Amino acid sequence: MSKGFLLVLSGPSGSGKGTVGKALMEKRSDIMFSVSVTTRKPRAGEENGKNYYFVSEKVFEEMVKDNKFLEYALVHNNYYGTPKDFVYEQIEKGEIVLLEIDVQGALQIKRNCKDAVFIFLLPPTMDELKNRIVKRGTESEEDINTRFENAFKELDFVGEYDFFVVNDKIEKAVEDIEAIIHAEKLRVKRQKDIKQKIISLGGIIHE
Amino acid sequence: MSKGFLLVLSGPSGSGKGTVGKALMEKRSDIMFSVSVTTRKPRAGEENGKNYYFVSEKVFEEMVKDNKFLEYALVHNNYYGTPKDFVYEQIEKGEIVLLEIDVQGALQIKRNCKDAVFIFLLPPTMDELKNRIVKRGTESEEDINTRFENAFKELDFVGEYDFFVVNDKIEKAVEDIEAIIHAEKLRVKRQKDIKQKIISLGGIIHE
Repeated sequence: MSKGFLLVLSGPSGSGKGTVGKALMEKRSDIMFSVSVTTRKPRAGEENGKNYYFVSEKVFEEMVKDNKFLEYALVHNNYYGTPKDFVYEQIEKGEIVLLEIDVQGALQIKRNCKDAVFIFLLPPTMDELKNRIVKRGTESEEDINTRFENAFKELDFVGEYDFFVVNDKIEKAVEDIEAIIHAEKLRVKRQKDIKQKIISLGGIIHE
Repeated sequence: MSKGFLLVLSGPSGSGKGTVGKALMEKRSDIMFSVSVTTRKPRAGEENGKNYYFVSEKVFEEMVKDNKFLEYALVHNNYYGTPKDFVYEQIEKGEIVLLEIDVQGALQIKRNCKDAVFIFLLPPTMDELKNRIVKRGTESEEDINTRFENAFKELDFVGEYDFFVVNDKIEKAVEDIEAIIHAEKLRVKRQKDIKQKIISLGGIIHE
Protein backbone atom coordinates (compact mmCIF):
# COMPACT_ATOMS: atom_id res chain seq x y z
CA MET A 1 0.00 0.00 0.00
CA SER A 2 1.45 3.34 -1.01
CA LYS A 3 1.12 6.58 0.92
CA GLY A 4 -0.86 9.47 -0.48
CA PHE A 5 0.30 13.06 -0.37
CA LEU A 6 -0.72 16.61 0.39
CA LEU A 7 -1.01 18.64 -2.82
CA VAL A 8 -0.57 22.31 -1.97
CA LEU A 9 -2.10 24.57 -4.61
CA SER A 10 -0.98 28.05 -3.80
CA GLY A 11 -0.36 31.46 -5.31
CA PRO A 12 -1.15 35.12 -4.78
CA SER A 13 -4.63 36.67 -4.80
CA GLY A 14 -5.84 36.73 -8.40
CA SER A 15 -3.80 33.72 -9.50
CA GLY A 16 -7.10 31.84 -9.62
CA LYS A 17 -6.37 29.00 -7.20
CA GLY A 18 -10.01 28.81 -6.15
CA THR A 19 -11.27 28.48 -9.74
CA VAL A 20 -8.56 26.02 -10.80
CA GLY A 21 -8.96 23.95 -7.63
CA LYS A 22 -12.73 23.75 -8.24
CA ALA A 23 -12.25 22.69 -11.89
CA LEU A 24 -9.75 20.03 -10.80
CA MET A 25 -12.11 18.64 -8.15
CA GLU A 26 -15.00 18.50 -10.63
CA LYS A 27 -12.87 16.45 -13.04
CA ARG A 28 -11.30 14.11 -10.50
CA SER A 29 -13.16 12.01 -7.98
CA ASP A 30 -9.93 10.53 -6.57
CA ILE A 31 -8.82 13.75 -4.86
CA MET A 32 -9.99 14.92 -1.45
CA PHE A 33 -10.42 18.53 -0.55
CA SER A 34 -8.83 19.86 2.63
CA VAL A 35 -11.26 22.34 4.14
CA SER A 36 -9.58 25.17 6.04
CA VAL A 37 -10.78 26.82 9.23
CA THR A 38 -11.19 30.61 9.08
CA THR A 39 -12.42 33.55 11.12
CA ARG A 40 -13.33 35.61 8.05
CA LYS A 41 -16.97 36.26 7.11
CA PRO A 42 -18.48 33.97 4.47
CA ARG A 43 -18.72 35.50 0.98
CA ALA A 44 -21.95 35.14 -1.03
CA GLY A 45 -22.54 31.47 -1.84
CA GLU A 46 -19.90 30.07 0.52
CA GLU A 47 -21.01 27.20 2.75
CA ASN A 48 -19.73 26.30 6.21
CA GLY A 49 -17.91 22.93 6.12
CA LYS A 50 -17.67 22.99 2.34
CA ASN A 51 -15.63 26.07 1.38
CA TYR A 52 -14.35 26.72 4.90
CA TYR A 53 -15.16 26.02 8.52
CA PHE A 54 -16.19 29.48 9.68
CA VAL A 55 -15.37 29.95 13.38
CA SER A 56 -15.00 32.77 15.89
CA GLU A 57 -11.60 34.12 16.91
CA LYS A 58 -12.06 32.53 20.34
CA VAL A 59 -12.57 29.05 18.88
CA PHE A 60 -9.64 29.53 16.50
CA GLU A 61 -7.30 30.51 19.33
CA GLU A 62 -8.35 27.41 21.32
CA MET A 63 -7.44 25.23 18.34
CA VAL A 64 -4.05 26.95 18.02
CA LYS A 65 -3.40 26.29 21.73
CA ASP A 66 -4.33 22.61 21.24
CA ASN A 67 -1.85 22.35 18.31
CA LYS A 68 -4.62 21.38 15.90
CA PHE A 69 -3.21 23.15 12.83
CA LEU A 70 -0.74 22.10 10.18
CA GLU A 71 -0.41 25.82 9.52
CA TYR A 72 -2.31 28.95 10.35
CA ALA A 73 -1.88 32.57 9.40
CA LEU A 74 -3.36 36.04 9.64
CA VAL A 75 -4.21 37.27 6.13
CA HIS A 76 -6.03 40.57 5.52
CA ASN A 77 -7.03 40.66 9.21
CA ASN A 78 -8.55 37.16 9.24
CA TYR A 79 -7.19 33.86 10.54
CA TYR A 80 -6.94 30.80 8.28
CA GLY A 81 -5.74 27.34 9.40
CA THR A 82 -5.40 23.78 8.10
CA PRO A 83 -6.62 21.07 10.48
CA LYS A 84 -3.72 18.64 10.99
CA ASP A 85 -5.40 15.34 11.91
CA PHE A 86 -7.61 15.20 8.82
CA VAL A 87 -4.68 15.62 6.41
CA TYR A 88 -2.39 13.05 8.06
CA GLU A 89 -5.12 10.42 8.38
CA GLN A 90 -6.03 10.68 4.69
CA ILE A 91 -2.39 10.56 3.51
CA GLU A 92 -1.79 7.40 5.53
CA LYS A 93 -4.84 5.85 3.85
CA GLY A 94 -3.27 6.60 0.44
CA GLU A 95 -5.43 9.62 -0.41
CA ILE A 96 -4.38 12.71 -2.34
CA VAL A 97 -5.46 15.74 -0.32
CA LEU A 98 -5.77 19.04 -2.16
CA LEU A 99 -5.14 22.19 -0.18
CA GLU A 100 -5.77 25.61 -1.70
CA ILE A 101 -3.81 28.11 0.31
CA ASP A 102 -2.18 31.54 0.23
CA VAL A 103 1.60 31.88 -0.04
CA GLN A 104 2.19 32.53 3.69
CA GLY A 105 0.38 29.30 4.59
CA ALA A 106 2.19 27.25 1.97
CA LEU A 107 5.60 28.32 3.28
CA GLN A 108 4.58 27.36 6.81
CA ILE A 109 3.40 23.94 5.58
CA LYS A 110 6.72 23.49 3.79
CA ARG A 111 8.52 23.77 7.13
CA ASN A 112 6.19 21.24 8.82
CA CYS A 113 5.44 18.77 6.05
CA LYS A 114 8.44 17.96 3.84
CA ASP A 115 6.66 15.36 1.71
CA ALA A 116 3.91 17.66 0.45
CA VAL A 117 3.89 18.64 -3.24
CA PHE A 118 3.95 22.41 -3.74
CA ILE A 119 2.45 24.04 -6.82
CA PHE A 120 2.65 27.80 -7.38
CA LEU A 121 -0.17 29.05 -9.57
CA LEU A 122 0.88 32.04 -11.65
CA PRO A 123 -1.12 34.69 -13.43
CA PRO A 124 -0.01 34.93 -17.09
CA THR A 125 0.65 38.70 -16.80
CA MET A 126 0.49 41.43 -14.13
CA ASP A 127 -2.36 43.13 -16.04
CA GLU A 128 -4.39 39.94 -15.85
CA LEU A 129 -3.62 39.64 -12.14
CA LYS A 130 -4.94 43.17 -11.55
CA ASN A 131 -8.06 42.46 -13.66
CA ARG A 132 -8.88 39.38 -11.63
CA ILE A 133 -8.48 41.16 -8.30
CA VAL A 134 -10.70 44.03 -9.52
CA LYS A 135 -13.32 41.69 -11.02
CA ARG A 136 -13.82 39.89 -7.72
CA GLY A 137 -15.71 43.04 -6.74
CA THR A 138 -15.97 42.34 -3.02
CA GLU A 139 -13.28 44.76 -1.87
CA SER A 140 -12.74 48.51 -1.60
CA GLU A 141 -10.17 50.25 -3.84
CA GLU A 142 -7.72 50.30 -0.94
CA ASP A 143 -8.16 46.54 -0.40
CA ILE A 144 -7.65 45.95 -4.12
CA ASN A 145 -4.39 47.89 -4.10
CA THR A 146 -3.16 46.08 -1.00
CA ARG A 147 -3.98 42.71 -2.59
CA PHE A 148 -2.18 43.68 -5.80
CA GLU A 149 0.94 44.86 -3.96
CA ASN A 150 0.98 41.70 -1.82
CA ALA A 151 0.51 39.55 -4.92
CA PHE A 152 3.45 41.26 -6.63
CA LYS A 153 5.71 40.67 -3.60
CA GLU A 154 4.55 37.07 -3.23
CA LEU A 155 5.74 36.17 -6.74
CA ASP A 156 9.25 36.23 -5.22
CA PHE A 157 8.43 33.04 -3.33
CA VAL A 158 7.90 30.88 -6.42
CA GLY A 159 11.47 29.58 -5.90
CA GLU A 160 10.35 27.83 -2.70
CA TYR A 161 7.87 25.65 -4.60
CA ASP A 162 8.32 22.38 -6.51
CA PHE A 163 6.23 23.22 -9.57
CA PHE A 164 4.76 26.28 -11.29
CA VAL A 165 1.54 26.28 -13.29
CA VAL A 166 0.47 29.24 -15.42
CA ASN A 167 -3.24 29.94 -15.19
CA ASP A 168 -3.93 31.49 -18.58
CA LYS A 169 -6.53 28.88 -19.53
CA ILE A 170 -8.22 26.95 -16.72
CA GLU A 171 -8.37 23.61 -18.61
CA LYS A 172 -4.63 23.85 -19.43
CA ALA A 173 -3.78 24.63 -15.82
CA VAL A 174 -5.86 21.62 -14.71
CA GLU A 175 -4.04 19.37 -17.23
CA ASP A 176 -0.69 20.54 -15.85
CA ILE A 177 -1.79 19.74 -12.30
CA GLU A 178 -3.08 16.32 -13.42
CA ALA A 179 0.31 15.51 -14.96
CA ILE A 180 1.99 16.50 -11.69
CA ILE A 181 -0.42 14.23 -9.77
CA HIS A 182 0.19 11.35 -12.23
CA ALA A 183 3.96 11.72 -11.84
CA GLU A 184 3.83 12.07 -8.05
CA LYS A 185 1.89 8.80 -7.82
CA LEU A 186 4.92 7.16 -9.45
CA ARG A 187 7.35 8.52 -6.84
CA VAL A 188 9.52 5.75 -5.44
CA LYS A 189 9.80 7.39 -2.00
CA ARG A 190 6.08 6.92 -1.24
CA GLN A 191 6.07 3.21 -2.04
CA LYS A 192 6.76 0.42 0.39
CA ASP A 193 8.37 -2.83 -0.75
CA ILE A 194 8.28 -2.41 -4.52
CA LYS A 195 10.53 -5.47 -4.97
CA GLN A 196 8.31 -7.57 -2.71
CA LYS A 197 5.25 -6.66 -4.80
CA ILE A 198 6.96 -7.89 -7.97
CA ILE A 199 8.12 -11.11 -6.35
CA SER A 200 4.63 -11.76 -4.95
CA LEU A 201 2.10 -13.64 -7.03
CA GLY A 202 0.20 -11.04 -9.06
CA GLY A 203 3.03 -8.55 -9.20
CA ILE A 204 2.27 -4.92 -10.09
CA ILE A 205 -0.01 -4.03 -12.96
CA HIS A 206 -1.63 -0.84 -14.22
CA GLU A 207 -5.18 -0.28 -12.95
CA MET B 1 14.76 30.23 -21.41
CA SER B 2 14.41 27.13 -19.27
CA LYS B 3 16.98 24.36 -19.00
CA GLY B 4 16.22 20.89 -20.30
CA PHE B 5 17.07 17.74 -18.42
CA LEU B 6 18.54 14.29 -18.73
CA LEU B 7 15.83 11.62 -18.46
CA VAL B 8 17.41 8.38 -17.31
CA LEU B 9 15.29 5.35 -18.25
CA SER B 10 16.82 2.42 -16.47
CA GLY B 11 16.04 -1.02 -15.12
CA PRO B 12 17.31 -4.58 -15.15
CA SER B 13 17.64 -6.80 -18.22
CA GLY B 14 14.14 -7.83 -19.25
CA SER B 15 12.43 -4.74 -17.85
CA GLY B 16 11.95 -3.67 -21.46
CA LYS B 17 13.71 -0.29 -21.41
CA GLY B 18 14.71 -0.67 -25.07
CA THR B 19 11.14 -1.33 -26.22
CA VAL B 20 9.58 1.36 -24.03
CA GLY B 21 12.25 3.91 -24.97
CA LYS B 22 11.64 3.19 -28.67
CA ALA B 23 7.85 3.56 -28.28
CA LEU B 24 8.34 6.86 -26.42
CA MET B 25 10.66 8.24 -29.12
CA GLU B 26 8.21 7.26 -31.88
CA LYS B 27 5.44 9.18 -30.12
CA ARG B 28 7.43 12.26 -29.19
CA SER B 29 9.47 14.42 -31.52
CA ASP B 30 10.52 16.77 -28.70
CA ILE B 31 12.85 14.27 -27.03
CA MET B 32 16.43 13.60 -28.07
CA PHE B 33 18.06 10.23 -27.77
CA SER B 34 21.44 9.95 -26.08
CA VAL B 35 23.43 7.38 -28.03
CA SER B 36 25.86 5.40 -25.89
CA VAL B 37 29.32 4.22 -26.84
CA THR B 38 29.96 0.48 -26.46
CA THR B 39 32.56 -2.18 -27.14
CA ARG B 40 29.99 -4.95 -27.50
CA LYS B 41 29.23 -6.52 -30.88
CA PRO B 42 26.17 -5.16 -32.74
CA ARG B 43 23.05 -7.37 -32.56
CA ALA B 44 21.05 -8.09 -35.69
CA GLY B 45 19.50 -4.85 -36.99
CA GLU B 46 21.52 -2.51 -34.78
CA GLU B 47 23.13 0.46 -36.53
CA ASN B 48 26.31 2.29 -35.60
CA GLY B 49 25.53 5.88 -34.51
CA LYS B 50 21.84 5.11 -34.10
CA ASN B 51 21.52 2.36 -31.47
CA TYR B 52 25.10 2.71 -30.20
CA TYR B 53 28.49 3.94 -31.26
CA PHE B 54 30.33 0.63 -31.62
CA VAL B 55 34.02 1.11 -30.85
CA SER B 56 37.09 -1.01 -30.03
CA GLU B 57 38.35 -1.41 -26.46
CA LYS B 58 41.37 0.70 -27.37
CA VAL B 59 39.23 3.63 -28.52
CA PHE B 60 36.99 3.31 -25.46
CA GLU B 61 39.95 3.44 -23.08
CA GLU B 62 41.26 6.57 -24.82
CA MET B 63 37.91 8.25 -24.25
CA VAL B 64 37.93 7.26 -20.56
CA LYS B 65 41.42 8.76 -20.21
CA ASP B 66 40.20 12.00 -21.85
CA ASN B 67 37.28 12.18 -19.38
CA LYS B 68 34.72 12.05 -22.18
CA PHE B 69 32.08 10.03 -20.32
CA LEU B 70 29.25 11.03 -18.00
CA GLU B 71 29.38 7.39 -16.89
CA TYR B 72 30.83 4.16 -18.15
CA ALA B 73 30.63 0.59 -16.96
CA LEU B 74 31.58 -2.98 -17.68
CA VAL B 75 28.39 -5.05 -18.11
CA HIS B 76 28.46 -8.69 -19.20
CA ASN B 77 32.11 -8.24 -20.32
CA ASN B 78 31.43 -5.21 -22.55
CA TYR B 79 32.02 -1.51 -21.94
CA TYR B 80 29.18 1.03 -22.23
CA GLY B 81 29.59 4.80 -21.82
CA THR B 82 27.59 8.03 -22.16
CA PRO B 83 29.36 10.86 -24.00
CA LYS B 84 29.36 13.87 -21.66
CA ASP B 85 29.57 16.89 -24.01
CA PHE B 86 26.54 15.91 -26.09
CA VAL B 87 24.26 15.64 -23.03
CA TYR B 88 25.33 18.91 -21.38
CA GLU B 89 25.09 20.92 -24.60
CA GLN B 90 21.56 19.72 -25.29
CA ILE B 91 20.36 20.37 -21.72
CA GLU B 92 21.68 23.93 -21.85
CA LYS B 93 19.71 24.43 -25.08
CA GLY B 94 16.54 23.35 -23.27
CA GLU B 95 16.33 19.83 -24.72
CA ILE B 96 15.09 16.70 -22.99
CA VAL B 97 17.69 13.99 -23.51
CA LEU B 98 16.56 10.39 -23.06
CA LEU B 99 19.16 7.91 -21.89
CA GLU B 100 18.37 4.19 -21.73
CA ILE B 101 20.86 2.62 -19.38
CA ASP B 102 21.47 -0.34 -17.09
CA VAL B 103 21.26 0.06 -13.31
CA GLN B 104 25.04 0.33 -12.75
CA GLY B 105 25.28 3.20 -15.21
CA ALA B 106 22.27 5.02 -13.76
CA LEU B 107 23.76 4.97 -10.27
CA GLN B 108 27.03 6.40 -11.59
CA ILE B 109 25.12 9.17 -13.40
CA LYS B 110 23.26 9.94 -10.18
CA ARG B 111 26.59 10.72 -8.51
CA ASN B 112 27.72 13.00 -11.37
CA CYS B 113 24.49 14.64 -12.49
CA LYS B 114 22.16 15.60 -9.63
CA ASP B 115 19.54 17.29 -11.81
CA ALA B 116 18.81 14.25 -13.99
CA VAL B 117 15.40 12.57 -13.65
CA PHE B 118 15.68 8.87 -12.80
CA ILE B 119 13.02 6.36 -13.81
CA PHE B 120 13.25 2.68 -12.84
CA LEU B 121 11.38 0.47 -15.26
CA LEU B 122 9.96 -2.59 -13.53
CA PRO B 123 8.79 -5.92 -14.88
CA PRO B 124 5.24 -6.65 -13.62
CA THR B 125 6.30 -10.07 -12.22
CA MET B 126 9.47 -12.17 -11.90
CA ASP B 127 8.00 -14.77 -14.28
CA GLU B 128 7.51 -12.10 -16.92
CA LEU B 129 11.08 -10.91 -16.36
CA LYS B 130 12.38 -14.43 -16.95
CA ASN B 131 10.19 -14.83 -20.08
CA ARG B 132 11.55 -11.64 -21.58
CA ILE B 133 15.17 -12.59 -20.96
CA VAL B 134 14.59 -16.05 -22.50
CA LYS B 135 12.66 -14.66 -25.50
CA ARG B 136 15.49 -12.34 -26.46
CA GLY B 137 17.11 -15.57 -27.70
CA THR B 138 20.60 -14.23 -28.21
CA GLU B 139 22.21 -15.74 -25.14
CA SER B 140 23.26 -19.15 -23.85
CA GLU B 141 21.41 -20.73 -20.92
CA GLU B 142 24.26 -19.67 -18.63
CA ASP B 143 24.00 -16.05 -19.84
CA ILE B 144 20.25 -16.14 -19.31
CA ASN B 145 20.66 -17.34 -15.73
CA THR B 146 23.31 -14.69 -15.03
CA ARG B 147 21.05 -11.97 -16.44
CA PHE B 148 18.11 -13.18 -14.37
CA GLU B 149 20.14 -13.29 -11.15
CA ASN B 150 21.56 -9.81 -11.83
CA ALA B 151 18.10 -8.49 -12.61
CA PHE B 152 16.77 -9.87 -9.32
CA LYS B 153 19.59 -8.20 -7.36
CA GLU B 154 19.22 -4.94 -9.24
CA LEU B 155 15.60 -4.54 -8.12
CA ASP B 156 17.08 -3.55 -4.75
CA PHE B 157 18.29 -0.28 -6.27
CA VAL B 158 14.81 1.03 -7.10
CA GLY B 159 15.03 3.13 -3.92
CA GLU B 160 17.81 5.23 -5.48
CA TYR B 161 15.50 6.41 -8.28
CA ASP B 162 12.96 9.25 -8.42
CA PHE B 163 10.15 7.38 -10.19
CA PHE B 164 9.09 3.79 -10.93
CA VAL B 165 7.15 2.71 -14.00
CA VAL B 166 5.70 -0.77 -14.36
CA ASN B 167 6.09 -2.16 -17.87
CA ASP B 168 3.09 -4.49 -18.09
CA LYS B 169 1.62 -2.72 -21.14
CA ILE B 170 3.98 -0.65 -23.29
CA GLU B 171 1.46 2.10 -24.03
CA LYS B 172 0.68 2.50 -20.30
CA ALA B 173 4.38 2.67 -19.44
CA VAL B 174 4.83 5.35 -22.13
CA GLU B 175 1.90 7.36 -20.72
CA ASP B 176 3.48 7.21 -17.26
CA ILE B 177 6.78 8.49 -18.63
CA GLU B 178 5.00 11.26 -20.57
CA ALA B 179 3.30 12.41 -17.36
CA ILE B 180 6.69 12.49 -15.63
CA ILE B 181 8.11 14.57 -18.52
CA HIS B 182 5.11 16.93 -18.44
CA ALA B 183 5.54 17.45 -14.67
CA GLU B 184 9.31 17.86 -14.86
CA LYS B 185 8.89 20.62 -17.45
CA LEU B 186 6.93 22.49 -14.74
CA ARG B 187 9.77 22.24 -12.20
CA VAL B 188 10.53 25.62 -10.71
CA LYS B 189 14.24 24.84 -10.23
CA ARG B 190 14.89 24.65 -13.99
CA GLN B 191 13.34 28.04 -14.73
CA LYS B 192 15.13 31.37 -14.68
CA ASP B 193 13.33 34.59 -13.74
CA ILE B 194 9.73 33.38 -13.62
CA LYS B 195 8.65 36.66 -12.01
CA GLN B 196 10.43 38.68 -14.72
CA LYS B 197 8.59 36.73 -17.43
CA ILE B 198 5.23 37.61 -15.88
CA ILE B 199 6.14 41.28 -15.48
CA SER B 200 7.38 41.46 -19.08
CA LEU B 201 4.97 42.30 -21.85
CA GLY B 202 3.55 39.01 -23.11
CA GLY B 203 3.92 37.19 -19.80
CA ILE B 204 3.82 33.37 -19.77
CA ILE B 205 1.19 31.45 -21.71
CA HIS B 206 0.62 27.82 -22.61
CA GLU B 207 2.01 26.82 -26.01
